[in-house]
Amino acid sequence: MYKVKVYVTLKESVLDPQGTTVKRSLNSMGYEDVQDVRIGKYMELTISESVANLDETVKEMCERLLSNPVIEDYTYEVEERVAQ
Amino acid sequence: MYKVKVYVTLKESVLDPQGTTVKRSLNSMGYEDVQDVRIGKYMELTISESVANLDETVKEMCERLLSNPVIEDYTYEVEERVAQ
Repeated sequence: MYKVKVYVTLKESVLDPQGTTVKRSLNSMGYEDVQDVRIGKYMELTISESVANLDETVKEMCERLLSNPVIEDYTYEVEERVAQ
Repeated sequence: MYKVKVYVTLKESVLDPQGTTVKRSLNSMGYEDVQDVRIGKYMELTISESVANLDETVKEMCERLLSNPVIEDYTYEVEERVAQ
């Protein structure tokens, strides 16, 4: 099995109201050193080794379902051979 | 400035209906090799260097606000000195 970690974040140019809200909360809790917070999605996919082309497949899934290419960027990392 | 990457995931014992839904969608789109999907939060914090104890501060913020210790686990990575 492959374990693939996918990170989906808002593009820099896109406002992040959720991140802004969390930043304000942290500041009001006394964590004034927090200057910025950006919030995204983190996904762990378990994919069987029978997949034909892992990279192509992961890119396709990211672009078709896991991220919104208009407002989001994605990156991913592949961890080899996790236990069955 | 420090850039801190925080990953919040559901504990293994906790059901992940959102992940299950995404898995079924991927399978129905033809990606049958996807065996499991777990979805969590990914946060990027920018913290000024004046912070007294970075690790302590990040752990506290994770446990008090950024994650729910009852059902979630968190990990984090610190990237040194990003540009101002």
